[in-house]
Amino acid sequence: MNPDSTITGVAIVGCGNVGGATAKILSQDSDILAERLCTQLRLKYIVDVDFTYAGSLSLDKSLFCDDLETALADDSVLIVAELIGGIDTARDVISRSLRAGKHVVTANKALLAQHGPELFAVARENGVSIAFEASCAGGIPIVRALLDGLVSNRLDALFGIVNGTCNFVLTEMARRGITYAEALAEAQQQGLAEADPTLDVSGMDSAHKLAVLASLAFGRKIEFMKIPINGIDNLQQCDVAFGESLGYVIKLLAIAERQDEGIALRTRPAFISREHPLAWVSGPFNAISVYGNVCGHTMYYGRGAGGMPSASAVISDMCSIAMGNWLQLFNSLPAWPDRAENAQQLPIEAVRSRYYLRVMCDDRPGVLGKITTILGRRNISITSVLQHEPAEDSMEGVPVIITTHRAVEGDVRNAIEEINSMDEVNSETVCIGIVEEYPEDIK
Amino acid sequence: MNPDSTITGVAIVGCGNVGGATAKILSQDSDILAERLCTQLRLKYIVDVDFTYAGSLSLDKSLFCDDLETALADDSVLIVAELIGGIDTARDVISRSLRAGKHVVTANKALLAQHGPELFAVARENGVSIAFEASCAGGIPIVRALLDGLVSNRLDALFGIVNGTCNFVLTEMARRGITYAEALAEAQQQGLAEADPTLDVSGMDSAHKLAVLASLAFGRKIEFMKIPINGIDNLQQCDVAFGESLGYVIKLLAIAERQDEGIALRTRPAFISREHPLAWVSGPFNAISVYGNVCGHTMYYGRGAGGMPSASAVISDMCSIAMGNWLQLFNSLPAWPDRAENAQQLPIEAVRSRYYLRVMCDDRPGVLGKITTILGRRNISITSVLQHEPAEDSMEGVPVIITTHRAVEGDVRNAIEEINSMDEVNSETVCIGIVEEYPEDIK
Repeated sequence: MNPDSTITGVAIVGCGNVGGATAKILSQDSDILAERLCTQLRLKYIVDVDFTYAGSLSLDKSLFCDDLETALADDSVLIVAELIGGIDTARDVISRSLRAGKHVVTANKALLAQHGPELFAVARENGVSIAFEASCAGGIPIVRALLDGLVSNRLDALFGIVNGTCNFVLTEMARRGITYAEALAEAQQQGLAEADPTLDVSGMDSAHKLAVLASLAFGRKIEFMKIPINGIDNLQQCDVAFGESLGYVIKLLAIAERQDEGIALRTRPAFISREHPLAWVSGPFNAISVYGNVCGHTMYYGRGAGGMPSASAVISDMCSIAMGNWLQLFNSLPAWPDRAENAQQLPIEAVRSRYYLRVMCDDRPGVLGKITTILGRRNISITSVLQHEPAEDSMEGVPVIITTHRAVEGDVRNAIEEINSMDEVNSETVCIGIVEEYPEDIK
Repeated sequence: MNPDSTITGVAIVGCGNVGGATAKILSQDSDILAERLCTQLRLKYIVDVDFTYAGSLSLDKSLFCDDLETALADDSVLIVAELIGGIDTARDVISRSLRAGKHVVTANKALLAQHGPELFAVARENGVSIAFEASCAGGIPIVRALLDGLVSNRLDALFGIVNGTCNFVLTEMARRGITYAEALAEAQQQGLAEADPTLDVSGMDSAHKLAVLASLAFGRKIEFMKIPINGIDNLQQCDVAFGESLGYVIKLLAIAERQDEGIALRTRPAFISREHPLAWVSGPFNAISVYGNVCGHTMYYGRGAGGMPSASAVISDMCSIAMGNWLQLFNSLPAWPDRAENAQQLPIEAVRSRYYLRVMCDDRPGVLGKITTILGRRNISITSVLQHEPAEDSMEGVPVIITTHRAVEGDVRNAIEEINSMDEVNSETVCIGIVEEYPEDIK
């Protein structure tokens, strides 16, 4: 269509789910891409050590290559897409590609969360860039929104549903009243959870994405190891139901907020008002709410995983590199982790939030008074108390549900320890954060 | 922060709601912007003919200037923001600015919808660009999503709630069961609707935005005059309620879809399943669902109007121009209206959709049979029929609610004409489109 059309050569390293989808789109949709771009992306190499899966995709087998150096030595290759995942090999592939003067596209949140600054610096030394839209929330262009679309804002908070497996499990627990184990089994049956789902259900995957997104939103270097991480694997059905009766929906949230003393980051199951748009996000979908000081609340929604949505992000990154606008952003923003100052990351004890507590205690006079006295002594003020009838077969006593005003998490933890040590309390108190709508101040 | 910091001079033309907010942010938030950018935006001129409002904003009065030529003659001004609105003067301001070698930022959807190609061509002739994120959906970075974030996709459909006034009115009608007139009065009281709300409630404003968004999504020139436009001003409360009983929510939607024979565009009140994320968008918020052939469904949500959200988009555009990435996009994409081919815009008679019909007819034997026979003869197949008891004071007979499978709108219109001419039918049949979820095909 465009007579000035130039050709940008591409190598894909790792031909699994995302790499395979990327290779197929680049091979099959070249007419669509040609109509969208003044430049042409051409897939030149599919680098891997095992082509069993790649061989099943009706790709051009002459692209298969088992030596990265061959692709790196080809001057027509301008972009290398690292789609193997994991840490050590991926890091080596990216580092070698950058040093060979290739731009890198990656979907690897774990690697970026842990070694982002080092890799960004290598890119800059070699006059190239790293693009990573696919690393967070699959097909949703959230990286560009944070860096470019909302660049005029001081970003104050980010709440993300960034793991589709967990969101599916929690949606099923809430809608159908089934247990965590039942919902997880169903996710596995539908191919939405791995046989070993630990990375997802532990909150680790969400925390990787949080580290990447928060570093962009706040323009600060994030220490991944300092992010408090809780998963959904201990979540009990009764808490999902009690929360619902209070007007809340449970979501695994990646949370980043400016608070008075620093930046509060954490990944955990949390209650959010059913009026909040994130509460509506069901099944395997992802969504991220971002709060800016000028734009107020914006939200981005879409498929957060899967070969095709991730390939959408990978190939959009390739396009932006080919068009030149990505390199401009990469060079013009101070927000990149290799340039930015360290974030003031609050230890979890200093984070402020609202909380939901479920205390299992004997149905005796004075117990509630003791509990509320413990909370009051630590400046934890109560918004609601619900004492429920004991469950039929419960040996643990009566559930007392308490919601609190905004309090300091360290105080809440100390109070819980004290409550748990009461004679009348029969099991560990359950504590779940309640996310408040971040206040917009944009009149 | 950055030693290489350069300065980009900016002139704002038109200091009303959006211009005033933009001027305030540029004046007050320069430290925030300096931390986000390697370049510095400096407001040099506020051009207007009347500074009554500007004077009330505690802006630096030495910036006030009543002659555009002064700003255009200043070589340090690289960007002119046209924020006066309207057609003729705005067109002249933009054209002169471009010819003076200034990049232009505008929020003017009416102008872009009607004269976009001409202005884009002038920009290109003069080696500069036009940026217009604020023209559609205020603070939501939807223009960038369509052009950059989703560039790897063939975009197949776009459904937008892009007018906050109408969405507020419809939300109140649905939630509280009040009439259109009551809801509009409340919107006016809350400052969410103009004293003369015609531009909003007629669907015209949404159609302007649809023209801009569809031209970017499909990479085609859109003829604004060919877009069928219906507003919410004739909507009756009973249809909102009947729709709700069928599982639908009423929204004023800007709709763009690829259909077999061409591109189907229209702006109208339409029913959408309450399971669809757009159904959740309430009050003055905007949201746009976009369907790509690779990413599937993505949605973008936020405040679609107001000084601050619009200023967020205006200043983000200034930043992208200052960083250089916007010019790269402007030059590298064939999608721009001045370069693109004409869209195959379907006449409304050829559009395919599902429909909701309300026929007011006598409660006599055989009437329903006659109606369904008329529909059947025109290949309109029925999904549901609900016959309701007559309203207490109704002189118009019994409402018969019919929903159809996908049908051709011309056939539906002809059928309605025939139904309306039946002796047993007492008033004009109401016809409202039902938007189906666009099928994702991204396994």
